Amino acid sequence: MNDQKPKIIDDLITMLGKKAVLIKADDTKSYLSDWHDRFHGAAHAVVLPESTEQVSAIMAYADTNNIVVVPQGGNTGFMGGATPDKRGNTILLSMRRMNNVREFDKKNMSMTVEAGCILQHLQDVAEDAGLYFPLNLAAKGSCTIGGNLGTNAGGLNVVRYGTTRALTLGLEVVLMGGEVLDMLSGLRKDNTGYDLRDLFIGSEGTLGIITAATMRLFPKPVAVSTAFAEVRDVDAAVELLHRLQAASGGMVEAFELIPADIMHVLFEAFPDIQRPLASIGAMNVLMEIGSTNPADNDVDGNGSAPIQAIMENVLGSAFDDQLVIDATIASSDAQRDALWDVRESSPESHKRAGKVIRSDVALTQSALAPFYADMVAGVKSIDPKIRICGYGHIGDGNLHFNLVQAAGGDPDFEAKTPKLLELLYSNVNKYGGSISAEHGIGQVKRNQLAQIKAPAIINTMKAIKGALDPKNLMNPGKVI
Amino acid sequence: MNDQKPKIIDDLITMLGKKAVLIKADDTKSYLSDWHDRFHGAAHAVVLPESTEQVSAIMAYADTNNIVVVPQGGNTGFMGGATPDKRGNTILLSMRRMNNVREFDKKNMSMTVEAGCILQHLQDVAEDAGLYFPLNLAAKGSCTIGGNLGTNAGGLNVVRYGTTRALTLGLEVVLMGGEVLDMLSGLRKDNTGYDLRDLFIGSEGTLGIITAATMRLFPKPVAVSTAFAEVRDVDAAVELLHRLQAASGGMVEAFELIPADIMHVLFEAFPDIQRPLASIGAMNVLMEIGSTNPADNDVDGNGSAPIQAIMENVLGSAFDDQLVIDATIASSDAQRDALWDVRESSPESHKRAGKVIRSDVALTQSALAPFYADMVAGVKSIDPKIRICGYGHIGDGNLHFNLVQAAGGDPDFEAKTPKLLELLYSNVNKYGGSISAEHGIGQVKRNQLAQIKAPAIINTMKAIKGALDPKNLMNPGKVI
Repeated sequence: MNDQKPKIIDDLITMLGKKAVLIKADDTKSYLSDWHDRFHGAAHAVVLPESTEQVSAIMAYADTNNIVVVPQGGNTGFMGGATPDKRGNTILLSMRRMNNVREFDKKNMSMTVEAGCILQHLQDVAEDAGLYFPLNLAAKGSCTIGGNLGTNAGGLNVVRYGTTRALTLGLEVVLMGGEVLDMLSGLRKDNTGYDLRDLFIGSEGTLGIITAATMRLFPKPVAVSTAFAEVRDVDAAVELLHRLQAASGGMVEAFELIPADIMHVLFEAFPDIQRPLASIGAMNVLMEIGSTNPADNDVDGNGSAPIQAIMENVLGSAFDDQLVIDATIASSDAQRDALWDVRESSPESHKRAGKVIRSDVALTQSALAPFYADMVAGVKSIDPKIRICGYGHIGDGNLHFNLVQAAGGDPDFEAKTPKLLELLYSNVNKYGGSISAEHGIGQVKRNQLAQIKAPAIINTMKAIKGALDPKNLMNPGKVI
Repeated sequence: MNDQKPKIIDDLITMLGKKAVLIKADDTKSYLSDWHDRFHGAAHAVVLPESTEQVSAIMAYADTNNIVVVPQGGNTGFMGGATPDKRGNTILLSMRRMNNVREFDKKNMSMTVEAGCILQHLQDVAEDAGLYFPLNLAAKGSCTIGGNLGTNAGGLNVVRYGTTRALTLGLEVVLMGGEVLDMLSGLRKDNTGYDLRDLFIGSEGTLGIITAATMRLFPKPVAVSTAFAEVRDVDAAVELLHRLQAASGGMVEAFELIPADIMHVLFEAFPDIQRPLASIGAMNVLMEIGSTNPADNDVDGNGSAPIQAIMENVLGSAFDDQLVIDATIASSDAQRDALWDVRESSPESHKRAGKVIRSDVALTQSALAPFYADMVAGVKSIDPKIRICGYGHIGDGNLHFNLVQAAGGDPDFEAKTPKLLELLYSNVNKYGGSISAEHGIGQVKRNQLAQIKAPAIINTMKAIKGALDPKNLMNPGKVI
């Protein structure tokens, strides 16, 4: 293998030019480990193609020479899906230089973009045209749309707009061997053969390289109401969501669960963040509705804009029905930002709190409350001092059920980890949930996937993998 | 083959019972031809299993004995996808007896239903629970949800809720050989491996038999406004759609294009249908918005409910901007029904008008107007007397561009058909459209699919077909 390496590097330089082929350890380091620095791999080289033709050439070369290809976007994933193994027989294919917006079709409300475009950039491009690209996650300043597609990323606005899959109209994919599948299209409806698009979305680079995509755009919400409420319990939160959806006609842009421990950990790390309510309630919700109708901002005789009136009415009747204990509605952008700060600073506060068991589970809305109750009881029986930070996008049933070590540290936390994980996954299983709502499988959950999925399903996935990548050169060791 | 037939029938009767195996010509006739009576096939027997276990047993038996299986729902498709070939080595598997609602989860807004459930029944079940199942097409009284899933059916409400694919959370599928893939789930988010669900949806029974599905439900629109407007042209219709979407916050439930010839043909067949406007305009739109907020029905000081005010304001400003020439808004259920009658009676009026070239194309919203203009010019150059009935769901870019023979008949219409079809498909191609927006491929468009799709895409579809059905026993001769 090492004998081949100099020739492989020469060939890649001939193909792509010297600047597009990184080989020095200093240059390749950030590509060969994940951003949590948990996984470390090796490669012949890191290549940065700038066109679909170059990706195709790389894939033809890799196939001929039996070299593994690991694609990578912004390298912000949590599951080690973009880090190669340590064997070194890999081309790490970074898509970052393929970052053009190829076409912007305002009338069709769609844009065709290359995989290396940074998510934040696409949000900005849409906004500049008076439109809205709703995909929104913490890594938006670094993650690429190709990575979002590869993992079917979720984020804050899934409750209204769906995951990345639901935002995608067309794809361009390069297969191992170099064939280019041009399925770019702005069509809303197209029943011509098998749905290859959705097969590649979420396949984490194990079936092909997504090089470009046509994404849906939306009218921009111009009237927004944001509120923070202490709710009776998780069940009350779900009921509140349904009421807000019905009253607003499906305008719920975000609906995030925030238990007390989230705020305790948060205010430890960031004491200056503004408390949303006078006291910290046991269970809370951060919610936002958005309307595309400017008239929903017009203040009426009662001093309230229609968008705010919807929120006030729903919270008022939920208060009367004892679903809501206390609530505040943002009346300025600054107040809105302060409410969002509670949610958006939480992941960083967990990092600062020390050891954390992170998770990304999904449940049906009818299972959320019993699951939550079982988890709280179970964690308390293992260690009542563990901070139970089960929070997140319950508008779509997605909880990041994080468990943070006791305040002041706990030397035994790691010893408790296997028991806590067993508790988590047995409850996910009990309630028919998912072990990965939005983060994907990567290398972290690959073995677990093989255990929880029925053999018939795993075998079907393997049959598809074998059909499209018979030599197992596409991001091996991930997903399946 | 014929020697085997008696044994095969005996075996099927042993497996399913005598009542579930139809063999007499009188009993099988309606299953072995399509409802337009264009396609006719043969089979050892028509079987009507009543459980997933029975479907599994049939599929194991078929695999062992190399017998083709053709699945069928309500047999209402247009593309011959549910009619077997004439060779006779087929089990026609009708799903009609598997028609239970297995689970109704109101809190999760989902229901798990068997493939043989009639669409209208599912609409009723949802409505009885105060919820809404939005899939809506002309065949709703006969078509099954299994058929809707197999073809990824569209219909009238796609502009708001998406095609059948977008309404589906989970699936149960039986593979050739009898393996059951239990992927039923009410989860909104689940990134655990390849998206098998969407691969089976729209595969027209060529990859496996869909036996059950978990479908999304929605809050019911309780405030509705329906209007009919003569518009300046197709471009004005698209602009009106965008304005109505933005003003209503995405509440557009239906947006249908209706050109003058649709109405000429309609009123010939049904002279008693009420004219929506005083005169027949060249280009018209039937549109509806729906809100789930009961308060949108409350009449305010100006005598107008909020939902009607949105429609009035949008049409008013569109009139000022000369996008709209004349319009009427339904002010009662009877008026609303009368407007919908224009749209819903059109397919039957085409049948009565004699020879028709039917189509089901999709375009981007930016291509709709130039496509339409090119088609009108092209058809007129072939024969100015042909009625140009390009109508339908332009909210999602879908046109049923039907061409109806001249009033009073035209003996040469069939001779013109190849030229007209060539015109249609060359324009679809020119504007990057789809030859099948919602009807699928079946046997009708199989050869055409092979011509228009790039070889790399066809080969990828074939690789997947080969991986899941290596002996080509699943509905052969369809799609691919």
